Amino acid sequence: MTVRTRVAIIGAGPAGLLLAHLLDRQGIESIIVDARTREQIETTIRAGILEQGTVEVLSRTGASDRVLTVGSRHDGIDLAFAGEHHRIDFAATAGRAVWLYPQHEALKDLIAARLAAGQDIRFGVTAERVEDPDSDRPRVVAVDADGAPLVIEADWVVGADGSRSVARASISGRHSGAYREYPFAWFGILCEAPPSAEELIYSNSPEGFALISQRSPEVQRMYFQCDPEAGPDALDEAELWTTLQARVPGTTLKQGRIFQRDVLRFRSFVASDLRRGRVVLVGDAAHTVPPTGAKGMNLAVADVVLLSEALRASLSDGDDALVDAFPERALERIWKAQHFSWWMTSMLHLQPEASDFDRRRQLGELRTVVESEAGRTYLAEAYTGWPLPGVEAVLG
Amino acid sequence: MTVRTRVAIIGAGPAGLLLAHLLDRQGIESIIVDARTREQIETTIRAGILEQGTVEVLSRTGASDRVLTVGSRHDGIDLAFAGEHHRIDFAATAGRAVWLYPQHEALKDLIAARLAAGQDIRFGVTAERVEDPDSDRPRVVAVDADGAPLVIEADWVVGADGSRSVARASISGRHSGAYREYPFAWFGILCEAPPSAEELIYSNSPEGFALISQRSPEVQRMYFQCDPEAGPDALDEAELWTTLQARVPGTTLKQGRIFQRDVLRFRSFVASDLRRGRVVLVGDAAHTVPPTGAKGMNLAVADVVLLSEALRASLSDGDDALVDAFPERALERIWKAQHFSWWMTSMLHLQPEASDFDRRRQLGELRTVVESEAGRTYLAEAYTGWPLPGVEAVLG
Repeated sequence: MTVRTRVAIIGAGPAGLLLAHLLDRQGIESIIVDARTREQIETTIRAGILEQGTVEVLSRTGASDRVLTVGSRHDGIDLAFAGEHHRIDFAATAGRAVWLYPQHEALKDLIAARLAAGQDIRFGVTAERVEDPDSDRPRVVAVDADGAPLVIEADWVVGADGSRSVARASISGRHSGAYREYPFAWFGILCEAPPSAEELIYSNSPEGFALISQRSPEVQRMYFQCDPEAGPDALDEAELWTTLQARVPGTTLKQGRIFQRDVLRFRSFVASDLRRGRVVLVGDAAHTVPPTGAKGMNLAVADVVLLSEALRASLSDGDDALVDAFPERALERIWKAQHFSWWMTSMLHLQPEASDFDRRRQLGELRTVVESEAGRTYLAEAYTGWPLPGVEAVLG
Repeated sequence: MTVRTRVAIIGAGPAGLLLAHLLDRQGIESIIVDARTREQIETTIRAGILEQGTVEVLSRTGASDRVLTVGSRHDGIDLAFAGEHHRIDFAATAGRAVWLYPQHEALKDLIAARLAAGQDIRFGVTAERVEDPDSDRPRVVAVDADGAPLVIEADWVVGADGSRSVARASISGRHSGAYREYPFAWFGILCEAPPSAEELIYSNSPEGFALISQRSPEVQRMYFQCDPEAGPDALDEAELWTTLQARVPGTTLKQGRIFQRDVLRFRSFVASDLRRGRVVLVGDAAHTVPPTGAKGMNLAVADVVLLSEALRASLSDGDDALVDAFPERALERIWKAQHFSWWMTSMLHLQPEASDFDRRRQLGELRTVVESEAGRTYLAEAYTGWPLPGVEAVLG
């Protein structure tokens, strides 16, 4: 079967769903396909630290009201090192905040809003390739859950299909881009316990990094730096608590049943090209960041804010100037975010090959940051998110 | 011959000379020995970017008036990358400035002031070792220019004898410490030409780093990143100008006869121990920084400001608390400065093994710094110098 739409979107993650939502607000029709079922998408637990700009886009465009009611605003983080705790006060420095709201909750909101508006989201449909990117009729070639072929012909195809993007393969090859590997991963747990601290603790300890995060009054999310080859069953429950507790001296962790464990690999990646002809990449299809700076979903939203207005200008006004400018504009923020993610990672983690010099320099760096209002502000600005170019057009 | 003094100082560089000067102001006698002749010391050309605190110490204690009259105040630097120039305005951000005043000019002032005050500086005397550091009569064992032995017995011995410190060997071994090597060096030239720019240009270019500095209306100092194995005669005059000019696009370099060339090796080092018993290390004997942040002489002054008051308390009041606290207090600034020097180096230089990711992340980092007032301030604060602990006691 061949169907026809204005914008074919591959991937029902934050980037794809938000793009469809923003296009719909401009009266532009789209079809989203995703290989996963709705339930799989809504139950894949992902962290979510949302920049203030991301929250404004979600809440003010009607994509999610719950982000403000269920999500919790955080006005700072705790940077711990050398046995000391230092608060980075976001409100007093950057004048902005972040919201803790798990990504899959945002996805539930977006899917519900899209379906309520009668939009076309096709779950269980696997995109196999994008054809004719350079023509004015690019096509997504897919198969549905029953193995039946489906072709979506569109004015524009957007690859919002994550780090293993099929759309990327049609642009400049699936693996073509700039990347960096890291010699560690995060071991993450979800546990039934009250919060151990009111704000996130990012801890640089001699044993390695740990992040103490919150999820709800009853459930907490914690991470610690581990060997990337470690499996999620490498440690038993007692060992997990011993490992975590040793990395946040001065804070007594509240323990509880651990009901989920996972190992997050670290990778930085930026695709060589964000666009070819009438195919464009956004979100993880365009870039991957390590989780330390919490930039993944926020970068996806920034991409989509820029792209939705660009596609509107192309489709409604026949003006492609903004689409032409999209890769360069998006890449400016992407490389700033890549730097921030790399910086937070390298400042807070124990590098396996670190010399005594490297280790003490790292502590010297943390000290220059926390002792200086400018240093704290520089970090807070990046963490809470730089201004979003193009957001006026989206919110207006 | 054996002579006796309160403080025996090895090394007539900025650290040793300033320490003798500050001790003398407190009525404490010292003897300085240096293997070099006065002429050698006064003609070894070294750069000099002096933090505002360094200038205050030199000028307000009578160590150098010329720093304010011959030296030139700089209220900013030019950070160049990706074909753009960005000014870091020190006055508007950190509220401080730096002074360009070559180190050997400061040495001339200090030596003249010391000799005019009838102080004991012994040139051409080579310290061979420090004995009995743990006793209350440590000794410097030396030979004079004629090969005659000289022993200086003192209450305190201070190793201000540079990166090849003899005093360090008596504390924890000459090579004991934390260090880092860098895969490049600076090729420096002095030339007869007017200034190419009013302020220093720190340029990150695809060809590598360059620094365009000034010396006087007639003489300029310029550097570019080179292979550490390169000799000073590796390039002819035309090649030197071509290399330099290619690294500062957008600025036309004013050329002139090149009358000095040298290759500066890069190294970061911090000695394991800054003190053993009654022997203390300051300046390059305690730490080496790469030249990028211009922190070498400034750190030496910061060490000496702390140590002079500590030695005064020990010798005049019999109170060793400040000497006991000296290593930890000094190390806090040393590691911040090590970080800053490493940071400026790694942000501005082309790493030979840099991947495409590394290179573009570096440009992303430069952009986060220059686009943010907090970022510019964070850099300016470090460049112009953090507040000097203990400076009130020295200036008072």
